[in-house]
Amino acid sequence: MDDLNTSTRPSALDAADPLAGHRERFVDPDTDLVYFDGNSLGRPLRVTAERLSRFVTGEWGGRLIRGWDESWMDLPLTVGDDLGRTVLGAAPGQVIVGDSTTVLLYKAMRAAVAARPGRTEIVIDRDNFPTDRYVAAGVAEECGLTLRWIDVDTSAGVTEQQVVDAVGEQTALVALSHVAYRSAWIADAAAITSRAHDVGALVLWDLSHSGGSVPVELDEWQVDLAVGCSYKYLNGGPGSPAWLYAARQHLETLTQPIQGWLGATDPFLMGPTYAPAAGIRRFQSGTPPIMGLLPLRDMLELIEEVGIDAIREKSVALTAYAVELSDELLSPLGVEIASPRDPARRGGHVTLLHPAMRAVTEQLWRRDVIPDYRDPDGLRIGLSPLSTSFAEVEAGMTAVREVLSRST
Amino acid sequence: MDDLNTSTRPSALDAADPLAGHRERFVDPDTDLVYFDGNSLGRPLRVTAERLSRFVTGEWGGRLIRGWDESWMDLPLTVGDDLGRTVLGAAPGQVIVGDSTTVLLYKAMRAAVAARPGRTEIVIDRDNFPTDRYVAAGVAEECGLTLRWIDVDTSAGVTEQQVVDAVGEQTALVALSHVAYRSAWIADAAAITSRAHDVGALVLWDLSHSGGSVPVELDEWQVDLAVGCSYKYLNGGPGSPAWLYAARQHLETLTQPIQGWLGATDPFLMGPTYAPAAGIRRFQSGTPPIMGLLPLRDMLELIEEVGIDAIREKSVALTAYAVELSDELLSPLGVEIASPRDPARRGGHVTLLHPAMRAVTEQLWRRDVIPDYRDPDGLRIGLSPLSTSFAEVEAGMTAVREVLSRST
Repeated sequence: MDDLNTSTRPSALDAADPLAGHRERFVDPDTDLVYFDGNSLGRPLRVTAERLSRFVTGEWGGRLIRGWDESWMDLPLTVGDDLGRTVLGAAPGQVIVGDSTTVLLYKAMRAAVAARPGRTEIVIDRDNFPTDRYVAAGVAEECGLTLRWIDVDTSAGVTEQQVVDAVGEQTALVALSHVAYRSAWIADAAAITSRAHDVGALVLWDLSHSGGSVPVELDEWQVDLAVGCSYKYLNGGPGSPAWLYAARQHLETLTQPIQGWLGATDPFLMGPTYAPAAGIRRFQSGTPPIMGLLPLRDMLELIEEVGIDAIREKSVALTAYAVELSDELLSPLGVEIASPRDPARRGGHVTLLHPAMRAVTEQLWRRDVIPDYRDPDGLRIGLSPLSTSFAEVEAGMTAVREVLSRST
Repeated sequence: MDDLNTSTRPSALDAADPLAGHRERFVDPDTDLVYFDGNSLGRPLRVTAERLSRFVTGEWGGRLIRGWDESWMDLPLTVGDDLGRTVLGAAPGQVIVGDSTTVLLYKAMRAAVAARPGRTEIVIDRDNFPTDRYVAAGVAEECGLTLRWIDVDTSAGVTEQQVVDAVGEQTALVALSHVAYRSAWIADAAAITSRAHDVGALVLWDLSHSGGSVPVELDEWQVDLAVGCSYKYLNGGPGSPAWLYAARQHLETLTQPIQGWLGATDPFLMGPTYAPAAGIRRFQSGTPPIMGLLPLRDMLELIEEVGIDAIREKSVALTAYAVELSDELLSPLGVEIASPRDPARRGGHVTLLHPAMRAVTEQLWRRDVIPDYRDPDGLRIGLSPLSTSFAEVEAGMTAVREVLSRST
């Protein structure tokens, strides 16, 4: 570690990185900007700009309404299948793309609660992402259930034992995040799912912070429902459509409350009454956002080319390097690491705690170093594996030290 | 009418059309294709292709997460205000863009029903668009209400008297379409809203088939709630985000059930409990689809430049010409017009009835004449005012005659 502060170490890491070349596929990765927020909004791929303008003049402008028959109607399912194969460990026919993460969480929670009549509780953790907690509270209130909260340490996440302690025959649904948005803690999704099933509860995983950076095996883990966004490690663009997974064995029984024409058996029959479509399409409501699916599809092609295991390997190397630099450069200034030190339990970002971090974040942004701030006191270093270099990590962490040492 | 079958009449109409030049702003309007389905999916503007690729490389790729602070967070409201000013007759702060029409119908209906506790009915017409009927049925079922159906003639829509006959102290909500998707009947929204208010009910208008082609005055009509899509006369692209209007006087009391972080008072406080934001933002749930808003914004600029009254004038001239051609060319073949003959009651399309129309539609598509078919027996001629020429109407109607005379 003696060459940490020289430029040779990050250069050597970048030179040895088999994925380094993929960085050039993204728009402008080589400016002086240090981007530590690809876990909030991923960079666009270069190919996406041209694809969108070609879509407007070609498919939309040229095929017009015929595009629906020719390909668009199935696109939420085909992109869903691509996502299932490439990122989620899900066989075809179980994933659909569309709506926002929040709307899909609502549909999934309502579906789960309806499938477990008579049960009175939803189990969720206090550190789950706000929208997950707010949706759960709303669903609980309108369905006459109560929330059972799991408490979580700052630098950890929900454990199997905590779930065992929280669930019982009263539990309709366990709703958790796979990777915690603050700590980056990776929950043991397989074990927790199994423990929830032991008492007959369903499980909903939010994979917004894992999809595209941490390997996921939804089928193997026997997950019931999962939801995630596509604008973080899936580089779909600001507010790009989210996705929903429902396991095959539930597809004929689960129903969701937003009954729209494109979730009905035959949309163009336009019949008098709604009957849910067979399969995953029943989770669709309105007309799917076709243009919003295109950037995601570009990124899924790249992920498939590289492979999720290679991406995870680089992700671990990047976060390990950030932890190493934090120990060396920032711990003397009182910074603590609020993410697991065990890489097997750590997702794609590292959160650093210090009372000055809110002000530090503002000053870093002014220097074109862009991390995120998360209450309380958390500087979140997001390291999107395919678009981040080790040199960028070193430059950013050095900037944190400079700003922090002047702030304290 | 003696020159109907010659080429001079449509050419003269196009030459006299003050809006004819705007046609060139759209992608490829001058191919041999006859596009009679701009009321299902509007053509893209040329400027949109370049705007999207500039967005990817510039705003998204260059500003990255900073784009949210700099402009994106307010975009659903600023585009909503643009829509309010340009198309809806709504003062600022009452319109938000995002989600699909179906999801927004769900939020609006749930909000209305919650605001009228103790009332037991939703009034809706049997010819309302399927997704409106399906959502209403779902909301009624989950909230313990019943639907009271209004029957409608094929070539008409809901009248003031029918609403008076249907509503009473039991009515929570009246949910209707302003322009009927089959007949193009324009409902008397001001009068109907007033009659519903007489009994204390709220009113929700679906403006998907009127917004951008028929003038609308939501504030003046004292409408409570309205929803519409942006991919028809607003040219937002396939599955582009829908919009919701809630009148200012209801904004502090209406609540909707999909409680997401971006509809909460301070999204980045990420606090323990959800409290709805002040104003129209409370109808937002998840992260808004920024890229999906851009084509809509382009079209709103064009509509503002031209003015909705001039657009309506051309729309009436186009549909009147289609009616005239139908009388001349198609009524001898047994075709009936299932749209109002009074232009004041007719929206932007004309529906033609004949038992062979399903097969005729298929054959027309093979000849690059693209109308829509709507059960039962309806050929729907949609005439998007800014992108359709009179020559196109003449060519298309002549093709209908040719195909139909060979089919019968």
